[in-house]
Parts: sequence; structure tokens; C-alpha cells
Amino acid sequence: MEIWIINGPNLNLLGVREKEIYGEEPFESCLERLKRKYPDVTLNYYQSNVEGELINRLHEVGFRCDGVILNAGAYTHTSIAIADAVAAVAAPVVEVHISNTARREAFRRVSYLTPVCAGVIAGFGLASYELALLALLNR
Amino acid sequence: MEIWIINGPNLNLLGVREKEIYGEEPFESCLERLKRKYPDVTLNYYQSNVEGELINRLHEVGFRCDGVILNAGAYTHTSIAIADAVAAVAAPVVEVHISNTARREAFRRVSYLTPVCAGVIAGFGLASYELALLALLNR
Amino acid sequence: MEIWIINGPNLNLLGVREKEIYGEEPFESCLERLKRKYPDVTLNYYQSNVEGELINRLHEVGFRCDGVILNAGAYTHTSIAIADAVAAVAAPVVEVHISNTARREAFRRVSYLTPVCAGVIAGFGLASYELALLALLNR
Amino acid sequence: MEIWIINGPNLNLLGVREKEIYGEEPFESCLERLKRKYPDVTLNYYQSNVEGELINRLHEVGFRCDGVILNAGAYTHTSIAIADAVAAVAAPVVEVHISNTARREAFRRVSYLTPVCAGVIAGFGLASYELALLALLNR
Amino acid sequence: MEIWIINGPNLNLLGVREKEIYGEEPFESCLERLKRKYPDVTLNYYQSNVEGELINRLHEVGFRCDGVILNAGAYTHTSIAIADAVAAVAAPVVEVHISNTARREAFRRVSYLTPVCAGVIAGFGLASYELALLALLNR
Amino acid sequence: MEIWIINGPNLNLLGVREKEIYGEEPFESCLERLKRKYPDVTLNYYQSNVEGELINRLHEVGFRCDGVILNAGAYTHTSIAIADAVAAVAAPVVEVHISNTARREAFRRVSYLTPVCAGVIAGFGLASYELALLALLNR
Amino acid sequence: MEIWIINGPNLNLLGVREKEIYGEEPFESCLERLKRKYPDVTLNYYQSNVEGELINRLHEVGFRCDGVILNAGAYTHTSIAIADAVAAVAAPVVEVHISNTARREAFRRVSYLTPVCAGVIAGFGLASYELALLALLNR
Amino acid sequence: MEIWIINGPNLNLLGVREKEIYGEEPFESCLERLKRKYPDVTLNYYQSNVEGELINRLHEVGFRCDGVILNAGAYTHTSIAIADAVAAVAAPVVEVHISNTARREAFRRVSYLTPVCAGVIAGFGLASYELALLALLNR
Amino acid sequence: MEIWIINGPNLNLLGVREKEIYGEEPFESCLERLKRKYPDVTLNYYQSNVEGELINRLHEVGFRCDGVILNAGAYTHTSIAIADAVAAVAAPVVEVHISNTARREAFRRVSYLTPVCAGVIAGFGLASYELALLALLNR
Amino acid sequence: MEIWIINGPNLNLLGVREKEIYGEEPFESCLERLKRKYPDVTLNYYQSNVEGELINRLHEVGFRCDGVILNAGAYTHTSIAIADAVAAVAAPVVEVHISNTARREAFRRVSYLTPVCAGVIAGFGLASYELALLALLNR
Amino acid sequence: MEIWIINGPNLNLLGVREKEIYGEEPFESCLERLKRKYPDVTLNYYQSNVEGELINRLHEVGFRCDGVILNAGAYTHTSIAIADAVAAVAAPVVEVHISNTARREAFRRVSYLTPVCAGVIAGFGLASYELALLALLNR
Amino acid sequence: MEIWIINGPNLNLLGVREKEIYGEEPFESCLERLKRKYPDVTLNYYQSNVEGELINRLHEVGFRCDGVILNAGAYTHTSIAIADAVAAVAAPVVEVHISNTARREAFRRVSYLTPVCAGVIAGFGLASYELALLALLNR
Repeated sequence: MEIWIINGPNLNLLGVREKEIYGEEPFESCLERLKRKYPDVTLNYYQSNVEGELINRLHEVGFRCDGVILNAGAYTHTSIAIADAVAAVAAPVVEVHISNTARREAFRRVSYLTPVCAGVIAGFGLASYELALLALLNR
Repeated sequence: MEIWIINGPNLNLLGVREKEIYGEEPFESCLERLKRKYPDVTLNYYQSNVEGELINRLHEVGFRCDGVILNAGAYTHTSIAIADAVAAVAAPVVEVHISNTARREAFRRVSYLTPVCAGVIAGFGLASYELALLALLNR
Repeated sequence: MEIWIINGPNLNLLGVREKEIYGEEPFESCLERLKRKYPDVTLNYYQSNVEGELINRLHEVGFRCDGVILNAGAYTHTSIAIADAVAAVAAPVVEVHISNTARREAFRRVSYLTPVCAGVIAGFGLASYELALLALLNR
Repeated sequence: MEIWIINGPNLNLLGVREKEIYGEEPFESCLERLKRKYPDVTLNYYQSNVEGELINRLHEVGFRCDGVILNAGAYTHTSIAIADAVAAVAAPVVEVHISNTARREAFRRVSYLTPVCAGVIAGFGLASYELALLALLNR
Repeated sequence: MEIWIINGPNLNLLGVREKEIYGEEPFESCLERLKRKYPDVTLNYYQSNVEGELINRLHEVGFRCDGVILNAGAYTHTSIAIADAVAAVAAPVVEVHISNTARREAFRRVSYLTPVCAGVIAGFGLASYELALLALLNR
Repeated sequence: MEIWIINGPNLNLLGVREKEIYGEEPFESCLERLKRKYPDVTLNYYQSNVEGELINRLHEVGFRCDGVILNAGAYTHTSIAIADAVAAVAAPVVEVHISNTARREAFRRVSYLTPVCAGVIAGFGLASYELALLALLNR
Repeated sequence: MEIWIINGPNLNLLGVREKEIYGEEPFESCLERLKRKYPDVTLNYYQSNVEGELINRLHEVGFRCDGVILNAGAYTHTSIAIADAVAAVAAPVVEVHISNTARREAFRRVSYLTPVCAGVIAGFGLASYELALLALLNR
Repeated sequence: MEIWIINGPNLNLLGVREKEIYGEEPFESCLERLKRKYPDVTLNYYQSNVEGELINRLHEVGFRCDGVILNAGAYTHTSIAIADAVAAVAAPVVEVHISNTARREAFRRVSYLTPVCAGVIAGFGLASYELALLALLNR
Repeated sequence: MEIWIINGPNLNLLGVREKEIYGEEPFESCLERLKRKYPDVTLNYYQSNVEGELINRLHEVGFRCDGVILNAGAYTHTSIAIADAVAAVAAPVVEVHISNTARREAFRRVSYLTPVCAGVIAGFGLASYELALLALLNR
Repeated sequence: MEIWIINGPNLNLLGVREKEIYGEEPFESCLERLKRKYPDVTLNYYQSNVEGELINRLHEVGFRCDGVILNAGAYTHTSIAIADAVAAVAAPVVEVHISNTARREAFRRVSYLTPVCAGVIAGFGLASYELALLALLNR
Repeated sequence: MEIWIINGPNLNLLGVREKEIYGEEPFESCLERLKRKYPDVTLNYYQSNVEGELINRLHEVGFRCDGVILNAGAYTHTSIAIADAVAAVAAPVVEVHISNTARREAFRRVSYLTPVCAGVIAGFGLASYELALLALLNR
Repeated sequence: MEIWIINGPNLNLLGVREKEIYGEEPFESCLERLKRKYPDVTLNYYQSNVEGELINRLHEVGFRCDGVILNAGAYTHTSIAIADAVAAVAAPVVEVHISNTARREAFRRVSYLTPVCAGVIAGFGLASYELALLALLNR
């Protein structure tokens, strides 16, 4: 089974800088833990700060993998193009957020992605990713 | 470790009727699967169509168990009383929804529960419950 | 042919108390008259003041009877949960009201039930029930 | 003389939990004190978290007892059905609140009950109940 | 213990005229009954139709008595000066109303007094005064 | 037949000072002329600048005389208490104004008295009083 | 030369109670100091909490004295009748305030008196009165 | 003790022209009278029609004198720059107006100066200046 | 007959710079032409960029000359002080503008001067000054 | 003559996936047909999902080719940067859309490109491209 | 090369008073430093609190110098006349602010100058002036 | 000392095309001049039309260089993601614009960057960059 985790802008900073915002753990160690824990899953990871590369990767993997875990970061609130890509691909896409975005700035309450995703998981820190993985495994 | 799953109105119909809405599987078989899969967790279940009985159960278990998975169904959008009960109990409560409520009627976008819950998981069918269970186990 | 009449909160007081509001006749005598007049119809009756018990009964009978006549009383205006139950069951549900609720307080003008019922009959006193029965027989 | 005290949702937590919200004293000890102090009054108590059971009890006792002291808790702000029951019964109903609700969240400022109750007593802690009892004894 | 009852404009008509509005009993007989019933309380009474005389009396007694029961009548809705006096004095002041003012004209819903009073009792006829007395005795 | 003319604040200055505002004639000479012209009417007069004393006098005479002619001056626009007194008394009360108050400052356009008076006569100078007297005689 | 100082509601509490609001010094000692300092001025003082008595006193002294210093307290914001009296009398009236009222509650920013007074002095504590006295002496 | 009186635009016309507007007395004679009457006060005077020269003088004297009496005339309503200067200097500044500006055009009701001044004196003609001087002496 | 032409800020640049804005002709040649054409008129000229100096000159000449032609430039839209000076002087003042200010930026549509001037002439280029002169000669 | 067709995000999916949305035909076959039909036109094609790469290509070809046919997909509604690139290049740019975007979600009604393009053709399926080509040939 | 620095109202207080607002360094020492550092530049300085003198200086130097650095202080927000002068002169004018004015009172967010200046430099303290000087040298 | 200049979309066209918009000089020659002039500064340059690549570069250099000069072009007005990156990095970021954006379209007046940048320099053509460099050197 093949699952892709796709992280959007600034999420490469997780665990490295601004730990009070982005959390204590680098995403890579979270990823390694997930791979060890789910050896039967081919778990691929992609991060890009580029909106169009996120779309490219969604196109490349979204018609042949078994699921996508997507944290589009700030593009969640501004990108109709990513939402169109999510709607186009065959694989189920799960929207994840590390924090409860509903408690932040007003311009972060708009999500173009929610209506086209399979589901949403928000507010559980990095554990949101494992929950999303399990959500896809359970489908 | 003791976890309670509490389901609100109409969720007793899961897997029995209107399968395109409520899914293929009765909640009981989902529950059995969860019990077998998580033998170390004492997993209790309660369903009621009665708002006040949901409050009763929250009171009974919410001060002594380790977590509550709450799908309050339609009461999510109308019940200040359940929200008061969630706020009163000691155990963390995770809000779950089977469907992506953001895609439905406007009156389902109001949630009295979200501000008093630990996190939200929506849109994964019955798997939302297992994800919520894992979210509680990971705390 | 099997039809259920389900009455909601305070409708047990019909004909007993507050006759200027609830009318002169107990609902039971109305029911007897209907049974005599429509001997070919198996006419069952249920009343409860508990929102969740109304849902329970809708679940029990709504998948096997041929029609439901529902006067949800004040829950008409506040209960998304009953509306969900009406939408879930297989039998056609006719919404009835004894008085013309549109002429009463503003908060009685909202009905969560109308969009999920087969039809609405309001304002004809107890005769509303017979009209609803005829509506179901005519389908 | 027979008086009923009817408490709504979450008021069973009085004096047990969240004492900064619900006060230091369990309602039961308050009730015992009232019974000893007013031995000539048959003082009955009912608490339910169920909206419809509060209505049932209002119906059962509201036509034969001499008065009802009603603290409907969060249902004060959402239940048209309880207000209809209060309006229907023969016994005078006194609305009580432990705290001054006018100083809390905006959604707690709406009361469906006030226009149909005999009177209101608010802001005196548990003593509000004794004052309501005396109000009924004095009628 | 010394308590003052202070009545505002038109309340001298109680029990004399317009009995359907002002009730059957003159306030004086109510006062006598209270004095007999609470012999340990020094119960003083003052009525005036004059706004400023109400302020005078609040000043005279409000720094030395143990509580004030204030029915400011129509001045409840128009007098910043009486509210200033209530805020200035040391004794607790309980706001009382004979009728349920929430059922009357919109201009009677504004109260300058509520925010500066200890609590509110409304709708019990003359018994509102005894209840307020008990509320003060219970403090 | 007994009629009372009751004048409110500043009307004691009529004919004495500020004649361009209050007119040339003292109210007393107007009163004498009316007494001579209507010898069969017992015509009494009262003036006070104190809101509460106007209420006092309305109470004293309003249950035994045959009519009251009331010019409440500036209290017309601010006193719910006088309006309550007018509503309480048995005698018909006619509201009079010397000037056309509708042509003056915006805050003089509100009258609490009009809804509880038998009628209004305004804008005819001192002749307003005679017209009010005739209005009462014609009843 | 004869000057009247007229104080309105609650100003009798100056220096006695609530010193953080009303200041440290009783008005009487301020008055004595003024009398000693201005022996050629007949300095009269009147305080009343009664709106109409303030009008009476304005009428009595306002046509024969040489000036009035008026602190109408809370009536500043509600009394059209006092404003009419100020406009009617011959003596110049100076409006004084101990504090800068423009910095308090919104309902204290309306003054019916300013447009009819000779001038305004605000914000200098009890010294505002001496300044007003000097203002009148200088005319 | 050193006090500066600073007059703004058009105030040089005082007592010379438009006596009905600007009064009978030239400001200079007023100034001489004040100097004779308060020989212990070093009383300096400055007038300019130029906004910036008023700022200059405030800067020059506002850090070394004991108080400033400022009538900024029409600049009161338009000059953020003068308000900045008043806020910057160390000496207390009293705002004075010869006339009652509240009775004039709506655009004269805005004052940029009041929030940064010690107090306000308005409406006493030239005597406003002496009152302001006394207000400063009394501090 | 003596007439003053007073020009405000930036009008010294006429004919010298920014000719597409300020026109081709220096104001001085316009002035010479007017002097030759109207030899019987003593025609004086003053220009300043300083608001207060314009006020100074209005004071100096406005009580002894026979008319003033005032182009206050941008101060037209911001200066209450110049408007006060215009209102103070005895000579009639005619407001002139070279361009039609109503067609320019919104902030140029407000004029404090128009209500206190004898008339307005705008939009005729330098000819506006001659028209204003004729307007004064025709009075 | 050299014309470029530039397609934006998700348009690489044309004819391959989601045929009910993106149509039956791959864009490549449409392109071949156009090349055969218009042999005299050098017809080049570029597609990218990256906003900035679309800008790059516009820069590269927009100064040397004879026209650009641009379908910017979802970036039409969010990209000021592509609009700036269109405005910068020398070649005429025709905006095309396969569907009538005005009939879709409200957020698709805003176009930053229209004001800087030579024209717009929308709603004709893949034929929109040929119409755009003809529009460019006809210039 | 000749550059003028023109400072508006209250900027003469820089470094002398209110250092928390106006900064630690007098402008003169900043100016000397600039002169030493840029010996080839004829660097002139002018400060005035007078709006019209700022216009005069702009006129005098704005047609012959090579650039103007203008910090108009509070006049930035109120002076159309200075903006007109900036627009009229030939030399480029750079608007500078010591602080980031966008973060202060709302009435300081309006700038009449920005649209007519060559550029804006804000938020770098006194270094804003040197940056502006360099901006002019670089033209 | 290491400084990065980061240019956003379309700024690669500087000096090449549309010289009336983008200026005469290619950015590269400007960069070379800056490098020669500031040999002690390690001056690095990056330009991209791709939003995410700008974020990449901010991440790469923003934690180790001494300052960033950022002209985000059109992304200034639409990119929450770049603003998040600016807020995340350690180095001070100065916002620059070649033109005075305040004179252009309304949608260019919104800047997501200003609140997270150290300061703003706008309107000086390519010199804005050197000024920003100096602003960073002066810190």
C-alpha cells in the first residue's frame, strides 16, 4: 500500500525553528517513526513551498497511490488551484492541521480544501498525521 | 485504560438502514473490532437518542474514565446543555463525525461542542472512531 | 395498511386541560373515530414528551409501516435530530399541526421537519389528522 | 401542601464538581434543610438531564401540586417545549437561577420561560430555592 | 437587625385602587404582617412619589441599616440619580417588583438599578417584599 | 361638577416672567375668568415643580373629582411615573400644552402621557385650558 | 451681592462617603472657606436630591439673586425641567462639575443644561465652585 | 510664579471690533488688570494668528513656566500640531474659551486640545482668563 | 475707492511655474492690467503662504478698505480661522478661485469661507479677479 | 507566424481524467488538429502547474512571438503576478476558458487577467482555443 | 549639490524632551554627522512650526535645489497647502517619518503628501533622513 | 556581513523591457554596482517568479545572513505564505518597492508583508535597494 504525505509552505521548519509555533519535533523523525510503525505501508514524503509543485506531486501520485495526507499550510486559505487538483485526482486526500486553525487569525478560517477532501483531522499536533494515515489504511 | 464512545441521535441506524448515508457497517461490529484490536483498552459504548441521557452518561463516566469519544449527531448544533456537560467533566472529549459536516446544510456548521472539546475528526466514516481512540491513546 | 400517528410534547394534554388552546376533544376519542371510519387501516398511536423517544419510535416503526402522521409540537422548531430521523426512515411522514403555527410567535415559524416530510397539513384542528391520513391513503 | 422542585441539566453536579461554578453545597443537603425547616410542606424533588422528562414531570405534578420551583439550566435558553408545558399546567411555576444569568454569555440572556412563569428569583445562590418556596407558600 | 423597605411612585395606591393592577392588599397591612412575623427585625418603611426623597432616604438609612428592599416603580427605568445613590450606600439593596415587568411595555425593560443591586425578585405580588427580606436575612 | 387643573414645572412663571415664552397673562387671571364663565363648575387649581407632588395630587383628587386638566410641562417628556398615576386614577385626564410642542426641540416630541390621557389639546395658548374644560364638560 | 450655590442629587455625600468618588472634603467646609474668603458676598447654599425642589429654589432665588452656581449631578443628563427653569430665571447660572464628565459613562455626556447656562467650569475638583463664584463676581 | 496666556487667531480683535462678538474690552486692559491684581504672578502674554508661532511659544515657555492659559481660537478644532505641543510640554495647560462654543456651529464641538489639557473653562467672556489663572494658582 | 486683493498659499507661483496648472500669466501683469482699466480704484495686493499672516492682513485692511477679493487657495478647505477673520472685518469679502474647485479632489469641495463671504466667483481663470472687482464696484 | 498556447494548473489532465469535467479529448489531439488545420502557423504549446513557471514562459516567448493563447486555470482568479506578466510582454494575449466560469463558484468570477488581455473567449469547450487562434490571426 | 532637510511642527524637540517619543538624539547632531559624512553635499536645514513658512521655504528652495527631505510632522495629516507646494516645486521631495506611522492613531494614517512625493521612507529612526539623502543623491 | 536581495515575480524584466515601467537599468548592473560600492558586504541575489522558491530562499538564508531586502512584487498583496516565512526567519527583512505602489490599483494597497517587516522604502526606483541595504547596515 502506498501513501503520500504532502506538506506545504513553511512546514519544512517543523522542529527546527520557532518551536513554540511549529512544535518540538522535526517532521523527519515523525516520518521515520511512522515508517517503522507501519512497515507494510510504502510511506512517501514530499514537502514543497511551491504551490504548483504541490499540484504536480498531487497529479503524479494522486492517480496511482492509495491515499494522500495533505497539510497545505498557508495555501489552504488562498489556493483554488490546489483544491482543483485534489478534486481531480483519484486517491482520497485527507486534510490535516497540526493546530486547531479555527482558533487563529480570521483569514486562516477559510479553507478551499475541506469541501474536496475526504476528511479533516485537526488539533492533535504531529499525531494528526498518524491519525490521517490510519484513516487512509482503514478505508 | 478506560474509554467511552458516546453516540447521539440516529446513530443507532448505522449499517442497518440508509447505508448510503450511514455506511455499510453496524456500529456494534465496528465496536467489536475495536475491542479485539485494542484489548488493553476497556472500551465502553453508549448510544441514546435522548439529549439528557447523553448528559447523564457524560456525568457518570466523565469523572472516572480516561477519555470520551463523542458523536453528538444533530445535538452538536443545538445543545448548550451537552456542551456544559463536556466542559464540566474531567476526561478529555474528542468530537467525531462520520460524514464531512462542512458539506451539508448551513445549520450543521454551528458546533457548540468544538470550543470545549480536545480536538475534531470528521469525514472518515466509522474509522473516525478508531482515529479518535488513537488520538486519546497518544495523549 | 399500517399507519402510525406520533404526537410530540404537550399533546398528551389535548382535550384535558387548557381547552382554549388544545381543543375540546381528547386525542383518544379522535383516534377512536378515525379507527371506526377507516376500518381497513391499522391505526397505531404513540405520544411522548421526550425528543429522543420520538426518534426511537420513528426508528422502530418507520421502516415497516406504510406511513407516519407526525405532530412534533414544539420540537418542530428546535429539533434537527427528529428531522434526521424522519429523513432516515422509509415510510412517508406527514407533518401536522392543530393550529396555524404561522400565526403564533415568530419562533414557531421555523420548521426543521418540513423539508424532510412528504407534506404539511396545519390549522384544521383535530381534523388535520384525518386529512393527513387521507393524504397517506391517496399516495 | 405539595411543592415540587425540578432541576434541569447538569444541576446534579451541584456541590460535587466544579465548585467554583456550581457552588460548594450539594443540592441534596439544601433540600434536606428545606424539608426540616418546612415540615408542613410535602417537598418533592426531581432532577433530570432529559428535556422531555422535565416536561413529563411538569405534566404529572403540575395539575395536582401547589407549585413548582423550576431551574431549567441550559434548557432555559433553548426549550420551547418546556415553556409550553409550563404554560399548560395549572400550578404556578417559579423560575429560579443560582447566579445572575444576565452577567454571563449572550446566549444565556434569552429565556423562553420567563413570560410563562409566575415570577423570577435570581442571584441569591441556593437561597434562591428557599425564596421560591416561600413565594409559593405565600400565594 | 434593621431593614428598610423603600417604595417609589404610585405604590401608595397598593390595595386601595386598581386592585387588578396593584393587588388586593394595602401595603401597610403587608408591612404589619411582616413586622409581626419577623419581630427580631426592625422593619422600617418609606414611600414617596418624589424621586429625590427616595434618594434622601437611601442616604439616611443606607449607611447604617443592614439592608434595603427597593421597589423604585417607574423610576427604575429613568433615574440615574437613584442608581448613583444605590451604588453609594453601604447596605445591600434588593430590587423588587410586584408584577413581572418583562411582560409589559418595552420601556420598562431598561433598568438602571439591576447592575448595582444585590439581586432581583419579580412577579410575586406583595410577597416579593417578604422574599427580599428573607434574601437579606439569609446573607 | 368638580374639575382640577394641574400644572407642572415652570408653569408658575406664566405671565410673570419671560412673557415671550410663557405669554402675557398670569395663570391666575385665566383661572378667574374660567370660574366666572363656568359658575356651575367647581374649578380647583394646583401647581408644583416636583414630579412626585404632581403624582400625589393626582392620587388625592383623581379618584373623587370629575376630570383633570393636566399640563405636565417638561415632565411630559420624561416621566413614566406621572403616566402611571394618570393611568391609575378614575377621573378622565386631558393633556394640555400652551405651545405646539411638536414645533420645538426634538426631545419635546416624546410624550409618555398621551397614551393614558383621554385627549390632547396643544398650541392654543391659555385658551387650551378652556378647550380642555369644554372637552370634559362634553363627555 | 447674593450668590446661590445649588447642588443636586448625591452631592450631599461629598467628603463623607465614597471619598474616592466624591473627594476628601465635605462641601460645607468648602462653603465656609468661601464665605470667609468672600465676606462681601452673601453666599447661600442649597442642596436637594429632589428635582422639583431644585426647580423651586431656582425660581425663588433666580429672579432676585445675582447668580447661581449649579451642579445638578445626575439630573444634568435627564432633566429637561431643570433646564427650562435655568432658561426662565433672570440670574446667570454657571454649570459646574467636580470631575471631567466627558471622561465617564456615555450617558453622562449628554447635558440638557449647557445650552442654557452662562458658562461651564469642569475638572478642577471643589475649586470649580470658587472659580464659578469668581466668574459671577466678575460679570 | 510665572504664567503664560497664549491667544490664538482673531483674538487680537478683542474689544476693538465686533464688540457684540468679541466683547467690550481689549485684551490688553484685561491683562493689565490681572497683572495689578496678581502682582506676585509673573504674567506673560502672547497672541498670534499663526498656528506655528503658537507652537513655538508653547515650546519656549512650556518647559520653564508654571502654567499656560491657552485660547487657541479656531485652531482648537483643526490643529493636531498644537495638541502635540501641549502634550509635549511640562507645564499644565488650561483650555479657555470666551464664548460658550457648545452653542455655535457643529464643527466647533470637536476639540483636539481637551484630552491633553488639565481642565476647561468656557463662556465667561474675558473673565475666563482670570478663572483659569486662579485654577492654576490653586493647583 | 480702495480694494484689496489677497492671495493665499502657492498663488505666488502663478505664471512662473507649472503653467498648465497655474496659467500663463503672472498675477502681477494681471494686476497692472486691472489698475490701468480701473484707474479710479486704489487696488492693493497682498500674498502670503502663512495662514496667520492672511488673517493679520485681513485685520489690518478689513476695517478701513471698501472690499476684499480673497483667493485663500488650499486654506479655503481647512481654515476655520480665516473664516472667522472674514466674518469679523467690516469690508465685504468676495471668495475667488481660478479653477472650478468642485471638479477636483473631493477634499477641495469643502469651503469654510463661502458662508461668511459676500459671494463666490470660481472657474474663470484670472478673469475671476476682474469679475470680483466688478461685483464689489456694483454693490 | 508564431503563436503560443499556454495552459495553467490542472489542464494537463484534459481528456485523461475526470472527463465529465475536463472533456473527452486530450489537449494534445486538439493541438494536432489545429496544427494540421493551420499549417502556416507555428503553433507551440506549454503547460505548467506552477504560477511562476507560467510567468517565466510568458517572459521567454511574449517578446518574440506573435500572440499568446492563455488558459491560466484557477490562477485566473488569484494571480496578480501573472496579470503583471501579461501586461509586461509585447505580444497580444487572449484569455480562454473551456467552461463558462461565470456559472461556477462565486470565487471563479474574479479575473485579474481580463483587464490586461486583448480579449476573452469562454465556454466553448476545446473550441475556445481555435476561436482564440482565429482572433489572433484576424488582428 | 544642494539638498534641504525641512522638518515640521514639534520636531525641534527631538532629543531634548520626551525622549521616549522623539528619540535620544537632537536633530542637530544628526545633521552635523550627515554634513561631515557627505562633504560634497551642501546640506541645508530648516525647521519651522509654521505651516506657511514650510511652504515659503519649499517655494524658495524647491525650484533651485536638487532635492528636499520633508518630515512634515502633524501637518502630514492636515495640510493640503503643503501638498500643493510639494506638487508645485521642481525638486524631488522625499517624505520621511522617524516611526512607522501606520502603527499609531487612526488620524495619523491619512497623508496628503504621499501622492505628490517622489518616495517614502518610514520606520528607521533618524537614519530615515540619511536614507532619504542617499535616495536624492542617487537620482 | 551577509545580505540577501530577494526579488519576486516579473522583476527579472527590469531594464530589459517596458523601461517606462521597470526602469532603464537591468537589476544585475545595479547589483554589480552595489557589490563594488560595498565590498565589505557579501551581497547575494536571488530572483524567482515562483512564490514557493522565494519562501525556500528566505528559509535557506534567513537564519544565517544579517538581513534580507525583499521586493515580493505582486505577491506582496496575495501571499500569506511568504508573510509566514518572513515572520519565521531570524534576519531583519526590509520591504522595498521600485514604484510608489500607493499611486496604483486599489488591490496593491493591501500588504501582508508590512506588519512583519522591519521597515518600508518605496518609490526610488532601483535606488530603493541601496537604501534598504544602508538601512540594514545602520541597524
